[in-house]
Amino acid sequence: MSFETFSKESKVKLDQALVKTIETLQNVESRHQEALKYSLSAGGKRIRPLLLLATFGLFEKELDKAMIPAIAMEMIHTYSLIHDDLPAMDNDDYRRGRLTSHKAFDEATAILAGDGLLTLAFQLLAEAPEIDDTTRIKLIQLYAQSAGPSGMISGQQADIEAEKTTVSLEALAEIHSQKTGALLTASVCSGAIIGKASSDEYRILEEYSKKIGIAFQIQDDILDVIGDSKKMGKNTGADQVLNKSTYTSLLTLEGAQKELANYTSEAYELLSQLHQDTTNLEALTALIAERDA
Amino acid sequence: MSFETFSKESKVKLDQALVKTIETLQNVESRHQEALKYSLSAGGKRIRPLLLLATFGLFEKELDKAMIPAIAMEMIHTYSLIHDDLPAMDNDDYRRGRLTSHKAFDEATAILAGDGLLTLAFQLLAEAPEIDDTTRIKLIQLYAQSAGPSGMISGQQADIEAEKTTVSLEALAEIHSQKTGALLTASVCSGAIIGKASSDEYRILEEYSKKIGIAFQIQDDILDVIGDSKKMGKNTGADQVLNKSTYTSLLTLEGAQKELANYTSEAYELLSQLHQDTTNLEALTALIAERDA
Repeated sequence: MSFETFSKESKVKLDQALVKTIETLQNVESRHQEALKYSLSAGGKRIRPLLLLATFGLFEKELDKAMIPAIAMEMIHTYSLIHDDLPAMDNDDYRRGRLTSHKAFDEATAILAGDGLLTLAFQLLAEAPEIDDTTRIKLIQLYAQSAGPSGMISGQQADIEAEKTTVSLEALAEIHSQKTGALLTASVCSGAIIGKASSDEYRILEEYSKKIGIAFQIQDDILDVIGDSKKMGKNTGADQVLNKSTYTSLLTLEGAQKELANYTSEAYELLSQLHQDTTNLEALTALIAERDA
Repeated sequence: MSFETFSKESKVKLDQALVKTIETLQNVESRHQEALKYSLSAGGKRIRPLLLLATFGLFEKELDKAMIPAIAMEMIHTYSLIHDDLPAMDNDDYRRGRLTSHKAFDEATAILAGDGLLTLAFQLLAEAPEIDDTTRIKLIQLYAQSAGPSGMISGQQADIEAEKTTVSLEALAEIHSQKTGALLTASVCSGAIIGKASSDEYRILEEYSKKIGIAFQIQDDILDVIGDSKKMGKNTGADQVLNKSTYTSLLTLEGAQKELANYTSEAYELLSQLHQDTTNLEALTALIAERDA
């Protein structure tokens, strides 16, 4: 199966599963349900669930077993976007070309939508069919550690604190390894966990995920400088206005592009150490490094 | 062991465990860590973890096994308070006589503190020592269902929507069964799950938890009318100002007090059906119904 087919078919399945999960919720308040559906159906590249499915696909052909963990991951990512966009955080009115949750609804509804998605992700993991209890527990632990105070949340807080000062390249990498990297790593690693990867395979995949995590953030910073705001569905140049330390401000645009190329080639090199067909992960690596939005 | 001893000793252990959990977190951003500790050490009655421990105590003498689920429950409760207090929600400056999180820190930090506590609760449950994987999964499912879109979150959203209109007594009970009741029920039920209650015992305890859930909310509404704002550490009369439908506005103060007495006696009656010594649960029931803050 080509990457195009894998990607297209998986996205259709993911979109359907996300909407169906929200539509079949019991006892849910209608405005809350609407807000959950609104943010989950905003499209997007679905990079995290695709990484999870592509990694799982190294070990098993039939991907359905990993679908629930994949949508749980997308829910956690979506919750983080809803909260990041809030007036008290990044104060963004648009995301993926559509009004952000607090603009389409209101702030209280957006806060609760984020809270709801985060909680629902753990419920889905606990109920994931075809996955044994021990594996479910491993996934829940990984998701919580990556998304919580030892991961994404601390990265987010550190990012806010860093706006008040200039940070070193090392500190910047540390912030982003938590803020963006943790969930990307968890996506790859959970695919490996569900696929029962050997400890060697797991180690390689974990290393790989860290490389693409940094690559992702560098490209994010590059896009804030040279990206097309129409394609991105949001304003660019925000980092400069905020005078934020970014890869481009610390390394120049050319330096950042070179750094991106380094991380990407290290990622490919790690994939080449695996015996499986890594076409889909290679394509996702390229997608992360070369994306225009 | 008397209730006073149980309650006092358990609270000391809970407080210590909460603080220790935050202090031993790895890779946590310092301001985030401070905000987590601030809200968790605000004191409070610790009703939910005490209900969990008291229920577990019906089945086992040594309570330590249930301590992690108990503090995870308190973390979820605390997260819900932090987010409820936000300007976009109830906009409260004080809670338990101290500045609310967004006042003591700032809004972004408060939002992240809530997010962090919610996520951490699931991490703790996934890592709870001495509890087998299948029981952990049951607990995670129960906590997520009670706190998420099918539980507390929908209750919170429904409560906000209800402010715009007058609701019936039935609708009010439904809102509060989700908003406040769900976590109280989960507290009692998880004590029963960890204690391996029989299905009959579980059913009785679940019923009991629903009665005290409603009793809790009725007393909340009564305190908003006749409570001492100094003891409560927050302003009273807020419901009236907002023209909210409450048990007192729908039933009069006397009617609400009578309704409270009904639910409380039904709760005692259910406890009397159990063969175990239910002293601690009886005392907690009285505490809920007769509390002055």
